[in-house]
Amino acid sequence: MNTPAPPVAIVGCGLVGSSWAIVFARAGHPVRLWDADPAQLRRALQAIPPRLEDLHAAGLGDAPEAVSARIAAAPSLEAALDGAAHVQESITEDVAAKAGLFARLDTLAPADAVIASSSSAIPGSRFQADLAGRDRCLVAHPANPPHLIPLVEIVPTPWTSERSIARVRQMLEAAGQAPILVRKEVPGFVLSRIQIALINEAISLVGRGVVDPDDLDRVMRHGLGLRWAFLGPLAVMDLNGPSGFASYIAHLQQTYAEVGRDLRVAEPWSDAAIREIEAARRAEVPAPDVPDRQRWRDRRLMALRAHLRDAERDIGA
Amino acid sequence: MNTPAPPVAIVGCGLVGSSWAIVFARAGHPVRLWDADPAQLRRALQAIPPRLEDLHAAGLGDAPEAVSARIAAAPSLEAALDGAAHVQESITEDVAAKAGLFARLDTLAPADAVIASSSSAIPGSRFQADLAGRDRCLVAHPANPPHLIPLVEIVPTPWTSERSIARVRQMLEAAGQAPILVRKEVPGFVLSRIQIALINEAISLVGRGVVDPDDLDRVMRHGLGLRWAFLGPLAVMDLNGPSGFASYIAHLQQTYAEVGRDLRVAEPWSDAAIREIEAARRAEVPAPDVPDRQRWRDRRLMALRAHLRDAERDIGA
Repeated sequence: MNTPAPPVAIVGCGLVGSSWAIVFARAGHPVRLWDADPAQLRRALQAIPPRLEDLHAAGLGDAPEAVSARIAAAPSLEAALDGAAHVQESITEDVAAKAGLFARLDTLAPADAVIASSSSAIPGSRFQADLAGRDRCLVAHPANPPHLIPLVEIVPTPWTSERSIARVRQMLEAAGQAPILVRKEVPGFVLSRIQIALINEAISLVGRGVVDPDDLDRVMRHGLGLRWAFLGPLAVMDLNGPSGFASYIAHLQQTYAEVGRDLRVAEPWSDAAIREIEAARRAEVPAPDVPDRQRWRDRRLMALRAHLRDAERDIGA
Repeated sequence: MNTPAPPVAIVGCGLVGSSWAIVFARAGHPVRLWDADPAQLRRALQAIPPRLEDLHAAGLGDAPEAVSARIAAAPSLEAALDGAAHVQESITEDVAAKAGLFARLDTLAPADAVIASSSSAIPGSRFQADLAGRDRCLVAHPANPPHLIPLVEIVPTPWTSERSIARVRQMLEAAGQAPILVRKEVPGFVLSRIQIALINEAISLVGRGVVDPDDLDRVMRHGLGLRWAFLGPLAVMDLNGPSGFASYIAHLQQTYAEVGRDLRVAEPWSDAAIREIEAARRAEVPAPDVPDRQRWRDRRLMALRAHLRDAERDIGA
């Protein structure tokens, strides 16, 4: 006796919006797409079926036709929002554009709809604070693309209601995503902050001549990344000690503090480092081959997710 | 007409040393183990066969008996070093102990042997500078454990010869490890520096109440870690742009600089954060279950490596 999944409106249909359409449609939601640019909307409708075929071929999705049948372009923003229980905004990262759009969304969306922004850097407070319905607005920042990487950062503003947070979390979990809660609107939220900490130090090491770009990448994929694919960094440390995190760090905390003070994550990237990285990458993947390499990445990502699902089943989560 | 793989001496047989023994023995090297503590040596010899069984069961290794047959305890340091082409030191992280041992190793090892330290934090310069054979000494810092995680940081001192670097790199590559070159002896080398950048910021976010420990870990294993398992962070950024790294970062560099200046990687960990993380981890894995969970981690790691090998073959590297 399942309740049918309620309609979802996708507003802004670039790479992120069209990927969100897949997330909600494969979970059974009727999905209406809208974009201010009709050409963008057409491109999204063309881009979705091949992605559904790829997912299906990788053993990760339902029959593509069944999912596609739930996705439709809306003739207007009003039509997209009509009856929607969830609105996912994924337009350009521009605070004025988001503010103008959220004013319309808050006016037009059904009274009980939650309105989420895919904003990756601008906190919701900067474009939701003045809305009558600000308690039903928040940020739900996906990893990119959300149909392949399940992590979503739910970032409420100070005015977002607990009910709205709970509804978005529940809907995302039911759709197979992995939502987390960011309790304060810090710059970069959580994912980008820890990513930037690592990347800025990495680029500084390249710029200082400590390590070549290719070797830096190998440190991740042959080293750190092998555990991080299925175990978070705190869990990794926890299992490095004979009796857990606190016992492990007793020996290490001083090293972490000393090295921490020596890091250069606040320095801007040097032009020399950027040139060296670009040259190393083009030697690996010539510019004309980048789109092919992106498809390779997505196939590898889908195969990895199928592996992780099977390994959880066979070995345990 | 392969030359037989030359003998390797493992000096110091804790977790790291006994794992190194597996790395070299499965590549065909005769391996002699020595430890100043005979009990430690016995424990290593007992620990190795079950690990070989696990590798074999995961489709990652030769018949355990054949590999075991290449590993033997040496009755003395002299006997361990006799005829060795490579010496891998893996004793405790103590500069005086390493200095004393390296003086003996440099005196006793064959003239053409390379002597590598598994040091994770102490640069080789601090205990190799005064040796007659300092040109054949360096650090080869493994990820832990090296028989499951192939990354090895080769860190020469200013006196290490190019020939010694090339020989260690060649031997490690032939053994299926993934060596990289760290060109300057910076604190924490490369792996620990980028790990500490990420971890220190992560623990600061927990301490500031931005994110719960479990959610922090989910950001990695449902987000960042999925690509990092097979693509380094620079390659990930490179493939996020339509035409590569330089085009991608043009839009992002300012965000990385702004967030970079806001990071708190130089702050010591707060006691409150440590307590919260320990509590969250023990709620997930009670203390008595930690050893079981470590075995689970190793099984998942082996399954992941088998997947990555197969995906490289089927989809491309």
